[in-house]
Amino acid sequence: MKTETARDLVPECATLLSALRAKSPLVHCLTNSVVENFTANVLLAIGASPAMIPDPEESGMFAGVADALLVNVGTVTKPQTEAMRRAVASARAAGRPWVLDPVAVGALPLRTSFAREVLAHGPAVVRGNASEIIALAGEKATGKGVDSTASTDQAEGAAGAIAAATGGTALVTGAVDLVLSAAGERATISNGTPLMTRVTGVGCAQGAVVAAFCAVSGGDFFAAAAAAALATAIAGDMAAEKAKFPGSFQIAFLDALAEIDGEVLRERARLAR
Amino acid sequence: MKTETARDLVPECATLLSALRAKSPLVHCLTNSVVENFTANVLLAIGASPAMIPDPEESGMFAGVADALLVNVGTVTKPQTEAMRRAVASARAAGRPWVLDPVAVGALPLRTSFAREVLAHGPAVVRGNASEIIALAGEKATGKGVDSTASTDQAEGAAGAIAAATGGTALVTGAVDLVLSAAGERATISNGTPLMTRVTGVGCAQGAVVAAFCAVSGGDFFAAAAAAALATAIAGDMAAEKAKFPGSFQIAFLDALAEIDGEVLRERARLAR
Amino acid sequence: MKTETARDLVPECATLLSALRAKSPLVHCLTNSVVENFTANVLLAIGASPAMIPDPEESGMFAGVADALLVNVGTVTKPQTEAMRRAVASARAAGRPWVLDPVAVGALPLRTSFAREVLAHGPAVVRGNASEIIALAGEKATGKGVDSTASTDQAEGAAGAIAAATGGTALVTGAVDLVLSAAGERATISNGTPLMTRVTGVGCAQGAVVAAFCAVSGGDFFAAAAAAALATAIAGDMAAEKAKFPGSFQIAFLDALAEIDGEVLRERARLAR
Repeated sequence: MKTETARDLVPECATLLSALRAKSPLVHCLTNSVVENFTANVLLAIGASPAMIPDPEESGMFAGVADALLVNVGTVTKPQTEAMRRAVASARAAGRPWVLDPVAVGALPLRTSFAREVLAHGPAVVRGNASEIIALAGEKATGKGVDSTASTDQAEGAAGAIAAATGGTALVTGAVDLVLSAAGERATISNGTPLMTRVTGVGCAQGAVVAAFCAVSGGDFFAAAAAAALATAIAGDMAAEKAKFPGSFQIAFLDALAEIDGEVLRERARLAR
Repeated sequence: MKTETARDLVPECATLLSALRAKSPLVHCLTNSVVENFTANVLLAIGASPAMIPDPEESGMFAGVADALLVNVGTVTKPQTEAMRRAVASARAAGRPWVLDPVAVGALPLRTSFAREVLAHGPAVVRGNASEIIALAGEKATGKGVDSTASTDQAEGAAGAIAAATGGTALVTGAVDLVLSAAGERATISNGTPLMTRVTGVGCAQGAVVAAFCAVSGGDFFAAAAAAALATAIAGDMAAEKAKFPGSFQIAFLDALAEIDGEVLRERARLAR
Repeated sequence: MKTETARDLVPECATLLSALRAKSPLVHCLTNSVVENFTANVLLAIGASPAMIPDPEESGMFAGVADALLVNVGTVTKPQTEAMRRAVASARAAGRPWVLDPVAVGALPLRTSFAREVLAHGPAVVRGNASEIIALAGEKATGKGVDSTASTDQAEGAAGAIAAATGGTALVTGAVDLVLSAAGERATISNGTPLMTRVTGVGCAQGAVVAAFCAVSGGDFFAAAAAAALATAIAGDMAAEKAKFPGSFQIAFLDALAEIDGEVLRERARLAR
């Protein structure tokens, strides 16, 4: 089933980062209220352009204009699901990639049924922690709030099922990040630092970065997800060299996202196929 | 009426801080939109785990799973009151402590009537500035926007009335913080810095920290409120030694919340009974 | 038509900054969800007092008590338009100045029709980037998301039309800021740094600063708009001397807003009439 090729993924990630900087894709984020500001600042720091348009009619129109869409269900409400439905439909109709982040999917009914509903509409990438990916795939949920209680390893089957069902890519984030495509491509990334879990929204903002990379990937969403995971994890490594507490780490992380370039990616990547 | 004992409160606060770090309680925050991100970062910095779930059905379910609940009415709307009502009922049914922060209660009708309504449902701690505590107790309101125009001293009667009415603890914050329990225990804390009023949400985030301490207090909400007030005020002192302007102060405050431990609490506490 | 006078604008801006610090005006912000926290911190840093009250009934009442009102349509929804309508009516009835920020007005229907509707209710200042000002005036829109694709120069006609229609002042921000009053007064400000576009909400927060200056201007909204534009652009210059990446720039910008005073304004101003 696997169609692993000899492609050299890290240089591709570096090329995608240059493309992101050159195009500055406009990323429409329908995301949770806790992380909107940080998500916008992460996108600006890495070189993309953020916008959040919550009115359902405007949201639908805007998703057809933006270069990519993020749907993150972290603080979903019924009115927000309507904006999300229209945005997904519009992005699809316009051929724009969209990314699903199934935050805390599992026991909570609104987000769980909604995430499963939109999963049928072809997300380019589904990004979540292990508990969320497992729950979204319909296996037994194990999360505590928004944190995962499962390891990336335990989610590999679920990630493969989601990739196969969507025809897209699944990105499972944790101490090791796992990227799996419907075509059977696989990569793991072991960059990153536990400090990334001490700042709210690092994972959620990563979902927006995935969308930004998708917009410049020419349809190679596996490479886009890998590039986003690699860039954010390496930015975390760089920030952890400058800051040991979460307040200053947050600032150093934003700085690192702006400072990072293809050469840094190539030097620091701990990526395995 | 007073049942003051010889308990040594500062070591108890230090013990509670260790317990918080060991358990990392999950705190469900239904709080105002201005401070959601900062509140989550404050909880993560001190060692707790934040979650914000606004949909009424999900919110009710989640409050029975989380270790504690914060209800802050700073940007309350009618839809949010429904989520708050269900969350309070669910937390109560599950025996989880909940904290009320009556932001800007007084002249504004929705928040004032709602805060008085839920006050009847047994909050473990009510936290507010002097003007808010005075207004919540039904005395003449004197606040300007979200800022207090009264001193902590002037709110002592109102705080005692609220503690008696709820059977819980009142925490009045200001240049001096006052902690009063229904059982007549009393403490004042004179740590802290005016810079804490130059960063939005320091007080609101403190309410979430109170909830986190309540979750590990074994029902001693007086000690929990004192521990939260002491830890945040001392973190303010530590940050003010590193930063004199509000931007860098905010970051240093988050860092200090992560750095602080029981020994620091014991060394720096300016707490009187 | 022009009634240019020999008034010396920079010293007036310095005087207004002192007045802002002395009065600490309470600014009611009905603004977009992405920037609420940063907007509040910007107001606190420069010396004003923020409040965000979204419930329509409370919002209407509060706008008559606050010293000024900001209406920013960046994430407008139908429920929010109702709160905005009531707040504008109440501010007008109480003689409080209000500021309109027409974020991303142009192709998106809800915000465009709403911004044009409230434009008839006498905003003291309309603040936007060139694309937004052009679109609000009914000319052909050219924005991409929330970013301008036009230069300040190209928006001068539209800005003049808006100032004339409202009897107030138009502030067009960009690499060069333009301030135009209905009475024909004109100033340009060339302070500022591109890093201000790498942090979300700098422009939106500037709208709140304009409202704060309006509250202490004695009705001279042209001077208020110039003072706000000058203070924020100079704070950007100061921050860019300390930080070259967007995370640390954001913090340095907040610090600079607190540090700046009349003398700094006079020394650094690049203002032309």
